[in-house]
Amino acid sequence: MATLGDICVSAAVNLLSAIAFLLAFAILRLQPINDRVYFPKWYLKGIRGSPTSSRTAVGKFVNLDYSSYLRFLNWMPAALHMPEPELIDHAGLDSAVYIRIYLLGLKIFAPVAVLAFGALVPVNWTGRRLNASKSKELTFSNIDKLSISNVPDGSKRFWVHIGMSYLFSFWTCFTLYREYKIIAAMRLRFLASERRRPDQFTVLVRNVPPDPDESVSEHIEHFFCVNHPDHYLMHQVVYNANKLAAIVAKKRAMINWHIYYENKYERNPSQRPVTRTGMLGIFGKKVDAINHYTSLIDNLSKQEEEERQKVRNDPDAIVPAAFVSFKTRWGAAVCAQTQQTSNPTIWLTEWAPEPRDVYWDNLAIPYLDLNLRKLLMTVAMFFLTFFFMIPIALVQSLANIESIKHVFPFLASLVEKPSVKNFIQGFLPGLTLKIFLIFLPKILMTMSKIEGFTSLSGLDRRSASKYYLFILVNVFLGSVVTGTAFQQLEQLIDQPSTEFTKTVGSTIPMKATFFITYVMIDGWAGIAAEVLRLTPLIMFHLKNTFLVKTELDRQAAMDPGCLDFSISEPRIQLYFMLGHVYAPVTPLLLPFIVVFFAFSYLVFRHQIINVYNQHYESGATFWPDVHRRVLTGLIISQILLMGLLSTRGTNKITLVLIGQPILTFWFYRYCKGRFESAFIKFPLEEAMVKDTLERAVEPTLNLRIYLQDAYVHPVFKRCELEKPMAVDDEEENPLIQTTRASRLSSMPESDNEA
Amino acid sequence: MATLGDICVSAAVNLLSAIAFLLAFAILRLQPINDRVYFPKWYLKGIRGSPTSSRTAVGKFVNLDYSSYLRFLNWMPAALHMPEPELIDHAGLDSAVYIRIYLLGLKIFAPVAVLAFGALVPVNWTGRRLNASKSKELTFSNIDKLSISNVPDGSKRFWVHIGMSYLFSFWTCFTLYREYKIIAAMRLRFLASERRRPDQFTVLVRNVPPDPDESVSEHIEHFFCVNHPDHYLMHQVVYNANKLAAIVAKKRAMINWHIYYENKYERNPSQRPVTRTGMLGIFGKKVDAINHYTSLIDNLSKQEEEERQKVRNDPDAIVPAAFVSFKTRWGAAVCAQTQQTSNPTIWLTEWAPEPRDVYWDNLAIPYLDLNLRKLLMTVAMFFLTFFFMIPIALVQSLANIESIKHVFPFLASLVEKPSVKNFIQGFLPGLTLKIFLIFLPKILMTMSKIEGFTSLSGLDRRSASKYYLFILVNVFLGSVVTGTAFQQLEQLIDQPSTEFTKTVGSTIPMKATFFITYVMIDGWAGIAAEVLRLTPLIMFHLKNTFLVKTELDRQAAMDPGCLDFSISEPRIQLYFMLGHVYAPVTPLLLPFIVVFFAFSYLVFRHQIINVYNQHYESGATFWPDVHRRVLTGLIISQILLMGLLSTRGTNKITLVLIGQPILTFWFYRYCKGRFESAFIKFPLEEAMVKDTLERAVEPTLNLRIYLQDAYVHPVFKRCELEKPMAVDDEEENPLIQTTRASRLSSMPESDNEA
Repeated sequence: MATLGDICVSAAVNLLSAIAFLLAFAILRLQPINDRVYFPKWYLKGIRGSPTSSRTAVGKFVNLDYSSYLRFLNWMPAALHMPEPELIDHAGLDSAVYIRIYLLGLKIFAPVAVLAFGALVPVNWTGRRLNASKSKELTFSNIDKLSISNVPDGSKRFWVHIGMSYLFSFWTCFTLYREYKIIAAMRLRFLASERRRPDQFTVLVRNVPPDPDESVSEHIEHFFCVNHPDHYLMHQVVYNANKLAAIVAKKRAMINWHIYYENKYERNPSQRPVTRTGMLGIFGKKVDAINHYTSLIDNLSKQEEEERQKVRNDPDAIVPAAFVSFKTRWGAAVCAQTQQTSNPTIWLTEWAPEPRDVYWDNLAIPYLDLNLRKLLMTVAMFFLTFFFMIPIALVQSLANIESIKHVFPFLASLVEKPSVKNFIQGFLPGLTLKIFLIFLPKILMTMSKIEGFTSLSGLDRRSASKYYLFILVNVFLGSVVTGTAFQQLEQLIDQPSTEFTKTVGSTIPMKATFFITYVMIDGWAGIAAEVLRLTPLIMFHLKNTFLVKTELDRQAAMDPGCLDFSISEPRIQLYFMLGHVYAPVTPLLLPFIVVFFAFSYLVFRHQIINVYNQHYESGATFWPDVHRRVLTGLIISQILLMGLLSTRGTNKITLVLIGQPILTFWFYRYCKGRFESAFIKFPLEEAMVKDTLERAVEPTLNLRIYLQDAYVHPVFKRCELEKPMAVDDEEENPLIQTTRASRLSSMPESDNEA
Repeated sequence: MATLGDICVSAAVNLLSAIAFLLAFAILRLQPINDRVYFPKWYLKGIRGSPTSSRTAVGKFVNLDYSSYLRFLNWMPAALHMPEPELIDHAGLDSAVYIRIYLLGLKIFAPVAVLAFGALVPVNWTGRRLNASKSKELTFSNIDKLSISNVPDGSKRFWVHIGMSYLFSFWTCFTLYREYKIIAAMRLRFLASERRRPDQFTVLVRNVPPDPDESVSEHIEHFFCVNHPDHYLMHQVVYNANKLAAIVAKKRAMINWHIYYENKYERNPSQRPVTRTGMLGIFGKKVDAINHYTSLIDNLSKQEEEERQKVRNDPDAIVPAAFVSFKTRWGAAVCAQTQQTSNPTIWLTEWAPEPRDVYWDNLAIPYLDLNLRKLLMTVAMFFLTFFFMIPIALVQSLANIESIKHVFPFLASLVEKPSVKNFIQGFLPGLTLKIFLIFLPKILMTMSKIEGFTSLSGLDRRSASKYYLFILVNVFLGSVVTGTAFQQLEQLIDQPSTEFTKTVGSTIPMKATFFITYVMIDGWAGIAAEVLRLTPLIMFHLKNTFLVKTELDRQAAMDPGCLDFSISEPRIQLYFMLGHVYAPVTPLLLPFIVVFFAFSYLVFRHQIINVYNQHYESGATFWPDVHRRVLTGLIISQILLMGLLSTRGTNKITLVLIGQPILTFWFYRYCKGRFESAFIKFPLEEAMVKDTLERAVEPTLNLRIYLQDAYVHPVFKRCELEKPMAVDDEEENPLIQTTRASRLSSMPESDNEA
C-alpha cells in the first residue's frame, strides 16, 4: 500500500510531465509554421489566413518576436475570456455545453471536497482503529488514517459518514437539477434564436410501405397531401448512392493530382511532368502526367454521369424513406410528434437531423430488422463486456516468440537473445490489449451503426452509452475487484447479491491510492497531452512536407479534430463516479478530481475556441445522457457505501442508507419528466412564435427554393466542396468581432499561394 | 403428498358443488321474480320490461311453465350463440375483449396439454427414479411418477423437457402475437366504426399555469387560439363541485321519499302519511310526511342553487384543467400527441377519456405532487406486499378472547364455553386475514386514486397491476416457498440469486397437488358461484321487500354489477402462470387449467350478455397490460425451470435455457413497438378519414352544440338521471334483434307499476 510520500512523488512526476507538455505547447503554438495545427478553427471560419505571407523567410517558420514568449501562458486567461453567448455563437452549442460537464464536476466536487475535509477527515483521523491494531496487523499508511478504514467497527462515528453521504447526494442532485435547468434553457434559447434552418421544417419519414401502383415519391406525396393537407410543402426522396459516392471521391483525388501537375508545369514550363501508370505513380509505363490525368478524369466523369443517371432513373435506387418538408415549423412539429397510421411500424416520422448530421446509410432499414439488430447488438455488447478477454488471450497466446520465429525465420537469432526475448514476452501481451483498447471505440461505433441510428449525433450518443458500460465494468469494477469481468459476473451470480456489494465495498478504501495515481496519469498528464496535440502536429508537418501539393491538400492536411463525445464523455463519467465513490470513504482523492475538472475545463475551453471543428450541431441533445450517467454513478456509489458499511459491524444503521438510491432514482425520474422532452420534442408554442415572426418579417419568402437542395445526398450537391448549409447561413452573418477575432483577423489574408 | 385418488375425490367434490351451483342457477333464473337479477342488462337496454304484468299472482313469482325446466341447461349454447360483432355492439369492446383472455388461455393451454401428455408424460413415467428409490425414501404418489420428479438426476431425458419448454414458449408467444394483432385490429375497427363521440374531438388539458391578468378560462382560450388557430373550437372548464354533488345526492334521496309518500297517499287518500323528523324516520316529532319532504326539498333546492351560483362565480372553484375541443378529430389528435410549450410540466395534453370514464377528483394535481405521490405509493406498495402480515398479526393479537371479554363484558360467560372459545380462537385470525383480503382491492384502488389517474379505466388498470404483484408474491411464491413474503425477501437478498430460483424451482413439483386443488376450488367452484350471483340475488330480494318504494328504487336495487377488471384479471393471470410453470414439470395440472378457461369463458360470455353493465368503454386499452403480464408469468416460469433443472445434476444443459427469457423479453419489446401505440395514440390517417367522411355526410353539423354539455361535471347536467352521452347515441340506433333479444322483448313492456 502506497504511503503519503509515494503519492507525493507520483504527484510531482505527473505534475512535472504535465508542466512539460504545457511548456512545449506554449512555445510550439507561437511558431507560425504550427499555426494551422493550433488555430485551425479560425482558418475554417475564414478569419485567419496563411501566416506565411508577410514575413521574412525565417519568420515564416519561427516566431522571432521574443516578447511574445514572455506571455507564453496567456492562453489560459484568454481561454476563459470569451463570454458564453459568444462561445455558443463561435463553437456551437454542443461544444459549449460539453465543457460545462467539466464545470459541473467542479461545482459538485469543490464544495464536497471542502466539506469532506472539514468533517470527515477529522472524524477518520481520530478514529484510531489502525493505531490500535498496528501491532498485530499490517502497517498502514497515513492515507488510510485519513480514510474510513481508520474508524473502529461498529463505531457511532459512522453516523457522520452516513449524514455526509446524504448531504453529498443532495448537493449532487441539487447541482444536477440546476444544471439541467440551465442547459434546457440554453437549448431552447439556442433553438429560438437560430436563423431559419432546413431541419426546422423537415421531418424524416421512414418505412414508407411499398405500393403496387405508385412510386415511392408519388406515394409519399399523396399520403401527406391527404393527411397534412394544410401544411405539406414538398419532399425529397433518398437515393442509395454508395457507388456514386465512391466514384466521386476517386474523381476528386484525380483532380487534385491534375492540379498538382499543372502547377508544377506552370512553374517549370520547360519540362512537361511525367508519371507512371502503375501503383502510386512508381511502377509502370512513363506517360505525360497532365494528359494522363485529364483522360482519367474524363473517364471518371463519364462513369459518374452514367451512375448518376442510373441512380436518378432506377426506381430500385430510391430507398423507402424521405425528408418531408412542411410550410410551417408548426406543421413539421406536428408531423414529427404524431403517429400517422394505425400500423406503427410504417410511415415512421421523426425530426429530421441537421443535414450535416444525417447518417445516410441507415435510412432504409425495415422495422423488424431494426428490432433484430438491437437484440443481436445487445447480446454482442454483453459478450464484448464480459468476455472480451477471451479472444485477446487467444491472440496473446499466438503472438509469442515461437510464432515469430516461425513466421519470420530471419529474426530467430535476434529474438533468442535473452534481453530481446524478455522484452517481447513482457511487451507483446500488453500491446495486444492496448491495440484492442484503441480499436474499442471504433468497434462500439460499428455496433451502433448496425443498430440503425439515422444521425451521427445519435450514433455518438449510443456509442458513448456502450463505452460507459465497458469502462464501468472493466475499468472501475475491474480495478476494484481482481479478476476478469467474467469472473466478477460468476461471483455476482453465485454469491448472495449483498455479498458482491460487500466485497466490492470493502475493497474500495484499499484501492484509493491506485485511483489517485490513475487520476494523475490519465487525467492530469493526459489532458496536458491533449492540448499539445502531438499526433496532429506531427501528421500535419509530415503531410505538409511530403504530400501537400495544392492549397486544397493543405486544407485537408489541417486536421482540426473535434470533441469526440462517444469516447471522452464516458471517461469523464469515470471521474464523476470515482469522486462519488470516494467522497465519503477517502476524501483525499477529491482534490485530485477537482484539479482534473478545473484543468480540463481550461484546456477544452481553449481547444473548442481555437482548434476543434464539430461535424454537426445537435443542440446539446446529449445532456440527458450525461445527467443519467452521473446519477447512475451516484447510485452505484451509494450502494457500494452500503456494502462497505455493512462489513463494518453496522448492519442496523446501514438500513438508513436504503432511502438514498430510492430517492436518487426518483429524482432521476422527476428530472426526466421535467426536462427531457426539451431535448426530444419541439413545442408547438415555440414553433408558432417563430412562424408568426417569419411571416411578418419576410412575407414573400419562397420556402420551396430554400429547401430544394437541403436534404440531397452530398454527392448530388452542386458545389464540390460540400459546404454544409448551416455554415452558409452562418457566413451570411459575420461573426461578432471579439477582441481575439479582431486581433487575429488583422493579419492580412492571402489564401492563394501554394 | 396427495395421491391420484385424493385428487379424484377432491375433483369429484368440487365438480359436484359446481354442478349444484349450476343447477340452482338453471332453476332460479327461470323464475320471473329473479328476472332482474339474471337479466339486468336487458332491462338497462330497455328491451325487457318488468315480467310481472301479464301473469297470474303466482306466475309473477314462480315459473309454472314446466317445459322450460327441461331445457334448463340451454343457457350454455345460448351464451355461445351471439356472434362476436354483435357481442361488441351489445356489451362493448371492453367486455368482448375481456372474455377473449379466457379464450387466449384455451388457445395456449389446450395444445400444450395435448403435447405435454403426448411427449412428457411417457418420458416421465418411464424415468423410474421414484421406483428405484422407493425402498429407502418416502413413498411417492402416482402423480409424481407422471412429473419431472420421476426422471433420474443428470438423465439425458431432460433434453425432452428443455425442448418442450422452448416449444411451449414459442407457441405461447405465437398465440399472444396473433391475439395482440387481432385485438389491435378489433380496437381500430371499433374506433373507426364508432359514431361521433365527444372524446374524439376533445383533449384533456392539465396544469394550466396561473396567469395574473386572465382567468383560467380566458387563458386557455387565448393559448389555444394562438397555438392551434385553425383547429381550436371551444373548451369546458372543470369546476370543483364536490360539495354541490353531495347536496344534489341528498336532494335526490329526499325526492324519492317524497314520491314514495305521494304514491302511498294516492293509494290510500283517506289518511295522509306521517313520518318522524328524527333519525331514519323512527324517532322524533311526528309530522305530515308529504309537507315535511316538500319543505326539505325546497330547502335543499335553495342550498343547491346557492352552491351552484357560488361554484359558477367563484374563480377559485375552477381547477386549472379543462376539456378543450377541436373542430376536427385531426386537430384533437394533433393536440393530444404534441408538446405545447417548452416547459413540459404545464399545458399537459392527453386524450380526454370518455365522459363516463372521467375521474373528476384528480384533474387538478400539479406536476411535482404527481411525482411525489407516485414515489410514496411505490414505497407503500412495497411495504404492503412484503409486510402486510405485520398489521394483521397485530390485529389478530388484539382480537382475542380477552379483548372480547373486555369490550363486551356481557359475552364473557358465552365465550368462556370451551366449544365457543375454540371456535373463536380458530376462526378469528383467519377472519382478520379474510377481511383484509376482501378489502385489499379497495386499498389498492385508493392507492391508485392517490397516484392521480384521471380516468376510471386508468385506475382499474393500475390497480390490476398492483394486485397482480400482490398475488404473484403472496399467493404464488407464498404457496411455493413457505414463510412470509418478508422472509422470502430476506432469503432473496442473503442467498446467491441463483439459490433462490433453485429453492423455488425444486419445490415446484411438490406443490402440484396443492395447486390442482386450488384450481378446482377457486377456479371451478368459484366460477360456478359467479354465475349463480348469490349475493346480488339475496340483496335484490331484501331490497325489493323492505326498501323499494318507487320504480326508481327498484331500478337502483337491481345491481347488474360489472366485470371488475382490477380484481378478476390478476386472478386469471395466476392461472396463466400456473399453466406455464407446470407445463414442463407436472403436465397433469394442465387439464384442470384448460377446464377452468373453457368453463370461465362460457360463464362470462353468458354474464356479459345478460348481466353486467360496464361503467365505461375504454376500447380494450387494457390489452397491453394483459399481454405484458402473461409474458411476465412466462419469463418467471422459464427462470424457475432453470432453477429446477440445475438442482437435478444438469448444470451444463441448463445453460441452453438462458436464451428463453432473453428471447421472450425481446418478443415483449417487439410487440410493444409493433402494437402498443394502437392502444395509446390515435393515428392521424384514421382521424382524417373520419373527418372527411363526416364533412361529406353532414356538412351542416354544428359541433359546438353537440359538444356543449359533453364534459360538464355530472351535477351540472340537466337530466337528473345522469344518462351518459354514449348510451344516448346507442339508443338512437336500435339494437340488432337477436333471437334472444326478440324472444325477450316479445314480453309486453310495462314499467309503470310500483
